[in-house]
Amino acid sequence: MRTIDWIDGAIELIDQTRLPDELVILRISTLEDLIGAISRLAVRGAPALGVAGAMGVALVAAAHPADTAVVEQAAQSLRDARPTAVNLAWGVDRALGRLVDGAAAVLAEAERIRDEDIAACASMAGRGANLVQALVGARPVRVMTICNTGALAAVELGTALGVVSELRARGLLEEVLPLETRPLLQGARLTAWELQQMGAPFRLLVDSAAASVLARGLADIVLTGADRIARNGDTANKVGSFSLAVAASHAGVPFVVVAPESTVDLATSTGKEIPIEERSADEVTMVRGVRTAPAGTRTLNPAFDVTPATLITAIITDRRVIRLDHGETPASVPLEPAAASSR
Amino acid sequence: MRTIDWIDGAIELIDQTRLPDELVILRISTLEDLIGAISRLAVRGAPALGVAGAMGVALVAAAHPADTAVVEQAAQSLRDARPTAVNLAWGVDRALGRLVDGAAAVLAEAERIRDEDIAACASMAGRGANLVQALVGARPVRVMTICNTGALAAVELGTALGVVSELRARGLLEEVLPLETRPLLQGARLTAWELQQMGAPFRLLVDSAAASVLARGLADIVLTGADRIARNGDTANKVGSFSLAVAASHAGVPFVVVAPESTVDLATSTGKEIPIEERSADEVTMVRGVRTAPAGTRTLNPAFDVTPATLITAIITDRRVIRLDHGETPASVPLEPAAASSR
Repeated sequence: MRTIDWIDGAIELIDQTRLPDELVILRISTLEDLIGAISRLAVRGAPALGVAGAMGVALVAAAHPADTAVVEQAAQSLRDARPTAVNLAWGVDRALGRLVDGAAAVLAEAERIRDEDIAACASMAGRGANLVQALVGARPVRVMTICNTGALAAVELGTALGVVSELRARGLLEEVLPLETRPLLQGARLTAWELQQMGAPFRLLVDSAAASVLARGLADIVLTGADRIARNGDTANKVGSFSLAVAASHAGVPFVVVAPESTVDLATSTGKEIPIEERSADEVTMVRGVRTAPAGTRTLNPAFDVTPATLITAIITDRRVIRLDHGETPASVPLEPAAASSR
Repeated sequence: MRTIDWIDGAIELIDQTRLPDELVILRISTLEDLIGAISRLAVRGAPALGVAGAMGVALVAAAHPADTAVVEQAAQSLRDARPTAVNLAWGVDRALGRLVDGAAAVLAEAERIRDEDIAACASMAGRGANLVQALVGARPVRVMTICNTGALAAVELGTALGVVSELRARGLLEEVLPLETRPLLQGARLTAWELQQMGAPFRLLVDSAAASVLARGLADIVLTGADRIARNGDTANKVGSFSLAVAASHAGVPFVVVAPESTVDLATSTGKEIPIEERSADEVTMVRGVRTAPAGTRTLNPAFDVTPATLITAIITDRRVIRLDHGETPASVPLEPAAASSR
């Protein structure tokens, strides 16, 4: 099953707000429904958002084949739905770039992005597992991870969790330590669900336990995804990633980012330029509809944080390994040839 | 209103599991009910646990005035109810030490512990506010804090939150940034409630946002309580405190521990000797009765962590200021005379 796909003229995607309680497939055929799904995180994860953005443009182009202005306005609404994740705008722009050739060309581009993502995840999984073996040694590893970076964050397989899946396939996975990832609990709801489906051994942690668990030597490596990677290697990701990187550095545990090339934004020089989305107070004061703080509580709720390149051991993409610990940056390491598409 | 008190022959305490939804006073007249209340954290916080332990011994001594063995067995059950917090055992042992003089003497000792706690919190608040002014300057400060260290953690006023209260009384409080403190959300449920009662400006954060918020320069100081302080200054406290200390150190923000002398355990040389309570999976996989992770999820759920002395700027007690950043330790700094009891 794919997290997001184009089926018979509409987008179909897994409603991630319903997991782990039930597996519900949403069929989306309007821009409004798609923006709603993106905003309430029914679809999330940088690679999946790229596909969603492109398919959203395809949806509007199919409905208004003669009206470029409507499609361009739709594209802007899609870009604005989540400001931090660069993949969303990237997917939108790639699809929009084919509008001159008509609605069918836009859809073909969106499907190409989907297929490239599938191939990219397979490539990252292999490169990532190789790097983990190089860093940790060829023995079963204990992986700490944050948020959800599995198949649910992409189309298939995922980024950081794709590496975990590959380690498992190689017989090199001892245990996964997923962080629950407040406020929206993607780790508890989604990663734990995916690890169960995978049959991988894991123990769930609250986010604030990560630092002491690392200091106690209970993890060999931290693997995370990314929402945007700047030219110098500074990486925006789910809030808590920076906290985890500081703790990993303190404990001497390697911290590795796994993300497709589409997440690398060479137009952004450093992390300081990355806008950080501030989300609503309800996310902090409620958990799955249950109030946790007194009514009227104000919050500070940044959805992302930026981990400086100095705290990152390496970045794995589908086309290269960037060893920040050896002084490399996204600007300095050349791309390898793209992997063949899976179809 | 006191968090815990002895009223007409029984213990009365605020049921903290019901906050912030409702203010419920429990009246407890049996050992079983008290151990139940301690175990499910209806009463919690190191100083309050000291009073609870002593009053629990008084309760059993009053019911079994001629049976020393029953009282001693009850004392052991009380000590075992929460293994990490040293105050619980300390309160139990102080009360038990008076058993040779009869049940009335045990009760008098428990009431003395209560009154000393009230005086100690007032003393810490003053010393703490003085130190904050010395570290930050005489200007309104922004305080980050974790867990609940207010009146609800003691009898009145509290430890770290008592300092906040004193800063507010001095007109020197700009904002409080309480962390929600998963898994049991004492920050969201209790500290936010107390800050609202106090009328103090605050914004609630998820725990994992603390590091980036500190790095962005949004807090001037971190104030925490403690569950046990070793001879060298290593401090066990709510899980997440170590994470916060690492982040504060990275950001160059002072990290100050506020706790009564009863929390200092000179018999414990370093943090390595402090047992860390591992609590049940339900705390992680459920939030206030709502499931957040798939059924069957295993967890790693340490209730506490240990912050090494090297990451702590200072420890404030009711009888001294220990500047760890100047090389002082609990073993090296003499006690000042005790503050006069408030009654």
